Amino acid sequence: MSSIDLSLLRQDVNAALAAFTGERSKHLGEIGDELTPVAYALDEFVNDGGKRFRPIFAYLGYLAGGNAHRPEILRACTALELVHVCALIHDDVMDGSDTRRNKPSIHRRFQEMHSTQKLKGDSEKFGHAAAILLGDLALVWSDRMLYESGISQQELIDCQRVFSDMRDELMAGQYLDVLEGALATASVERSFKVARYKSGKYSIERPLHFGAALAGRSDLFKTFSNYGLPLGEAFQLRDDLLGVFGDPTITGKPSGDDLREGKRTVLIALTMEQLTVNQQQTLEQALGDPTISEQQIDELQRLIRDCGAVDRVEKLITELGAQAISALQDPKLDTKIATALEQMAIIATQRSL
Amino acid sequence: MSSIDLSLLRQDVNAALAAFTGERSKHLGEIGDELTPVAYALDEFVNDGGKRFRPIFAYLGYLAGGNAHRPEILRACTALELVHVCALIHDDVMDGSDTRRNKPSIHRRFQEMHSTQKLKGDSEKFGHAAAILLGDLALVWSDRMLYESGISQQELIDCQRVFSDMRDELMAGQYLDVLEGALATASVERSFKVARYKSGKYSIERPLHFGAALAGRSDLFKTFSNYGLPLGEAFQLRDDLLGVFGDPTITGKPSGDDLREGKRTVLIALTMEQLTVNQQQTLEQALGDPTISEQQIDELQRLIRDCGAVDRVEKLITELGAQAISALQDPKLDTKIATALEQMAIIATQRSL
Repeated sequence: MSSIDLSLLRQDVNAALAAFTGERSKHLGEIGDELTPVAYALDEFVNDGGKRFRPIFAYLGYLAGGNAHRPEILRACTALELVHVCALIHDDVMDGSDTRRNKPSIHRRFQEMHSTQKLKGDSEKFGHAAAILLGDLALVWSDRMLYESGISQQELIDCQRVFSDMRDELMAGQYLDVLEGALATASVERSFKVARYKSGKYSIERPLHFGAALAGRSDLFKTFSNYGLPLGEAFQLRDDLLGVFGDPTITGKPSGDDLREGKRTVLIALTMEQLTVNQQQTLEQALGDPTISEQQIDELQRLIRDCGAVDRVEKLITELGAQAISALQDPKLDTKIATALEQMAIIATQRSL
Repeated sequence: MSSIDLSLLRQDVNAALAAFTGERSKHLGEIGDELTPVAYALDEFVNDGGKRFRPIFAYLGYLAGGNAHRPEILRACTALELVHVCALIHDDVMDGSDTRRNKPSIHRRFQEMHSTQKLKGDSEKFGHAAAILLGDLALVWSDRMLYESGISQQELIDCQRVFSDMRDELMAGQYLDVLEGALATASVERSFKVARYKSGKYSIERPLHFGAALAGRSDLFKTFSNYGLPLGEAFQLRDDLLGVFGDPTITGKPSGDDLREGKRTVLIALTMEQLTVNQQQTLEQALGDPTISEQQIDELQRLIRDCGAVDRVEKLITELGAQAISALQDPKLDTKIATALEQMAIIATQRSL
């Protein structure tokens, strides 16, 4: 097998998504013209960027045992992206986020449609309802994309358990995340648990297992866990830094968005450990307050940086990334795929996007 | 085959649900104690009543071709109920409904938990987030219950398309329903379209097709459409009447709930056709106003009844029910199952629950 071109693989994932959502959108239009905005919004959301980490990890998981490229397996792996689309759309409703990838989030988009067309009732409520249903539809589509991918019956059966486990863990992780914000604890251990479910398992370990299951190679599961879990935590830690310090033109979210949303990240927990009681109260009061000013954000950013929490998180990312990469020493892994997974580890932990 | 005892069948469905959710709840508890309220709420919601129409129709669809009873097929059919659980939980969030089956709806329940435990942030927002995630989890569980049911690989493959179509149509129907409320039109034709997607297809036709697909009997699809679509419309019309006139102790919802929610039902559309312009304005202003008083509800109920709309809806229910039953004359249908489907038509159109 020639070496893996990850950007080409991402393009293939994008093409598979575009083909599938194009077909589905057409079908929605056939039910009725009223569904055209639904089809259009979902189609645009799905096809408008995205890192495609989960399909890429899944496909690498399939190739890792030495299998040849197969477009139907790529389509099956791409179904995972639609689960993620559901998670993002519902997450934005739950967090009350106005933007996603520098565009209005789905619920804001339908809220605007309601308002512009002067429809009856509460525009925000309409936006929420539409976004809940569009997220549900994306989740249902993920099933269809998988079974229509063209993989064999045996392969379809083989990946079901991992597919279910991944989605269960996603929903559990999301709930833990919401609950942590409400409990307002500052436990490093608990924040790591959320990171493990939200990212370690859902974003990396399970997609790799999904691919390995399609290949009938459950013997690779352990190696993929050893690689995926620390890398997922590192990935989430990078996400935490971006959520507080990220450039809005790159992240597609306003700067300091995680602070406004009151996310209880490892970064915040490590910060709390270093602050005086007064400083803790300042941070505590600001966290989750949607009205905090740009200036307050600046001050909080300085507080978090000056106490050394950013350096500690960067150090953790480096250590976890190295730990993940060392797990790739498994002789059972195809060497070209091990190299690609090493590249993915770098992309996932050093990304600015 | 002996004749079908529908209440026994419903008990079997309940037992299958209880076994599945018990297992799943245990698994959630293993992820963490924090998930115990999620497990408990979902377990109670799923196992607390419900007519179980969709699993029953699906199982009758399987038996209709002359197949013998098989517990694994019953479990597969019962998976449809978990799709419905997702629909109900998300529907209550979208409608802002406080109660379901005379108990607090899921989002209110988690709102109360947040408030009682004096957690940080907005209690209503927390309740909504939890309910979105619990609905998602129920949807994911439906897949798991299907593939863990014990049916053969071939059967699992055979039912996938119908299963996907059913869920697509549910989400499309729900969106049409929300949109109709916002458009505030009074079109009988459009209201029937919503009824067709929400009930005709999703609740009756597709479950029957699902069962027939499991039996490898796609030759029965047409008969089931001829039976299911009019019956589904009749079922929805009965639901519309109950939504305005239903006894809260029986429906589990406050009297006149559909009026407060501004549902654009066939009943409302037929009412509008009969009213004077002044009366139309009175109804129009009250529809969707969550603050309307008991006395206003009484007046609106009288308005809807006195204009003859209730009689017209009752007549439509009778006609559609008869049309459905006449479709059961197909000699390909097992006669005992045809009898059971006739009983189901009566239950679905005459129900007070």
